Amino acid sequence: MTKIKQIQSYLKEKNLDLAFITTPDNVFYFSQFKSNPHERLLGVLVFQDVTPVLVCPKMEVPDAINSGWQYDVIGHLDTDQPFELIKEKVQLNNITVNNMAIEKSHLTVERLEALQQVFPKASFTRLDEKINEMRVIKDEVELEIMREAARLADYAVEVGVKEIAEGKTEMEILTAIENTIKEKGYSMSFDTMVLSGPKTASPHGNPGNRKIQKGDLILFDLGVEYKGYCSDITRTFAFGNVSDAQKEIYQLVRSANEKAIEAVKPGVRVMDLDKTARDIITEGGYGENFTHRLGHGLGISVHEYPSVTGTNELQLKTGMVFTIEPGIYNDIAGVRIEDDVVVTETGVEVLTKYPKELIIL
Amino acid sequence: MTKIKQIQSYLKEKNLDLAFITTPDNVFYFSQFKSNPHERLLGVLVFQDVTPVLVCPKMEVPDAINSGWQYDVIGHLDTDQPFELIKEKVQLNNITVNNMAIEKSHLTVERLEALQQVFPKASFTRLDEKINEMRVIKDEVELEIMREAARLADYAVEVGVKEIAEGKTEMEILTAIENTIKEKGYSMSFDTMVLSGPKTASPHGNPGNRKIQKGDLILFDLGVEYKGYCSDITRTFAFGNVSDAQKEIYQLVRSANEKAIEAVKPGVRVMDLDKTARDIITEGGYGENFTHRLGHGLGISVHEYPSVTGTNELQLKTGMVFTIEPGIYNDIAGVRIEDDVVVTETGVEVLTKYPKELIIL
Repeated sequence: MTKIKQIQSYLKEKNLDLAFITTPDNVFYFSQFKSNPHERLLGVLVFQDVTPVLVCPKMEVPDAINSGWQYDVIGHLDTDQPFELIKEKVQLNNITVNNMAIEKSHLTVERLEALQQVFPKASFTRLDEKINEMRVIKDEVELEIMREAARLADYAVEVGVKEIAEGKTEMEILTAIENTIKEKGYSMSFDTMVLSGPKTASPHGNPGNRKIQKGDLILFDLGVEYKGYCSDITRTFAFGNVSDAQKEIYQLVRSANEKAIEAVKPGVRVMDLDKTARDIITEGGYGENFTHRLGHGLGISVHEYPSVTGTNELQLKTGMVFTIEPGIYNDIAGVRIEDDVVVTETGVEVLTKYPKELIIL
Repeated sequence: MTKIKQIQSYLKEKNLDLAFITTPDNVFYFSQFKSNPHERLLGVLVFQDVTPVLVCPKMEVPDAINSGWQYDVIGHLDTDQPFELIKEKVQLNNITVNNMAIEKSHLTVERLEALQQVFPKASFTRLDEKINEMRVIKDEVELEIMREAARLADYAVEVGVKEIAEGKTEMEILTAIENTIKEKGYSMSFDTMVLSGPKTASPHGNPGNRKIQKGDLILFDLGVEYKGYCSDITRTFAFGNVSDAQKEIYQLVRSANEKAIEAVKPGVRVMDLDKTARDIITEGGYGENFTHRLGHGLGISVHEYPSVTGTNELQLKTGMVFTIEPGIYNDIAGVRIEDDVVVTETGVEVLTKYPKELIIL
């Protein structure tokens, strides 16, 4: 309830009658109920004073209660009009909705129009930044969970490395990794990526039946979910002898990763981290081949606020968690090295600990 | 391009200057490029006459071209303002946007506001129904793909059944299934569900480390993706002897599944199918325990148009594909039986073929 109280205070401060939180990860943050509602409506209604209401498919009501939700629930059937049910609940609470906070980066235009129908007097304002501001700072409970998620990611990389062998396919290695993690009762944060040879040069490539050959670079990008929180690690390995050009690219990426991590401390701007890494790669002659941002926030979502880009002026604060993942992708090689880091009072804590020297298998 | 031409004709007919297709599965439908852009902007711009433009993260441009996209691409970096790039492209094409079609069930309020910024004169109209109308009718190429996806789902169930044994955990069985499918180079349509004992009564439960015991019902809900199309099957098994009450529930669900399938033919309304199944379960005394709709459309998405509910008056047409999945969930049992069906000129083709008599393992 502490987190919901912060939203209630915000509503009072901004003179908002109602907030509707709809991003599933935010619903989890505020309710402890993790659900993928597909196209069905899921959300938390927060009022200034009245207790909050969870809106979810009727068949998920027992799961919501088991997850610890102690307040009112609107459980809707597929034949119900959930926005009409919301209207009724709001009327029961004797609340007139003149100003409503919504998540504009998540709520669809269709659902906004449905809200406009049931609350015709309402104007709609963004809640996104307020929630980002809350979620971006992880408390010690969250950090302890994320340390374990990162340990599991390190372990998953270790499992994968043991599987690498000539003639094995990307999918076989991937399956062995996911296998081991699932057998331990955990799930992956996202679809594991195992790419080899020229395929490493596609930052978002699809693992397939390509067989590992001598001279390949092999890239793992994976994460493990622990108690609702994600880790995300990338390591690139050499199988047998790789060329000097490939080694040079590897060392450049490693250096960019390490220098950016060293630069992390409260007060530094996010864009400065991106610049630190990008400058190293640009000076090495591969600036054009580092085609994405340095990283992204990490927590309940694999990709969350803040985006670690060259234009983000946000200043780092203690408790922020994000990835640092420079990469170079060209005809010679695809290399990315990614770690999860926390901003501490004195600098940085690196959650992912798998070694970063070039490992030649 | 045939599919894009249909959108172009629609734009002319409705006097719309521009369509922006943003649902990733619809982007795939129109471009053959399958991508999960996370929070980044992905979409297809369709004009009345000018060739279409794909908008995607810059790092995915090579993948888009490899997927067969032959037209213009706006590849944006994380530091770019993609809506400004869209505005420039539209201006280059000498087009003034007065009326624009968007997917209101997908586009976020934030992105609508960004479009309003760059096209201040534009009014925005729904494209959703037009695309649904196109996607809901599968052509023979799509059906052949979906038959194979369903064959793979049957096979996955077969793999799972062989794994069932006393003391094995849900996750072990699940992993064995996903393992086998992945080793064959395919991926699952969604996270496989293996639930046992009392957990079968949660329609959207999470597989875990519960061990299979004598007297358990065991429920598999899974699907395999083949060439971008999904299958989705549910079967419920008995491990050792289950109670008469559980058997009665099973037979009721099976009968609801079979009678609803028998009712499928062109001209029948979707709601009549739901009613056929629901009446059987209600007459059996378990109406309140069938807590969800009868099924959902199936194709590129696991859940797509149409929703097979008791209020949907849509009339079936040849080429429609959807699931039929009645279920009963209570303290005694959780049973669901789900098939994928196609409406044919003369009636129905059932894609999933795994047997439905109660199998006691």
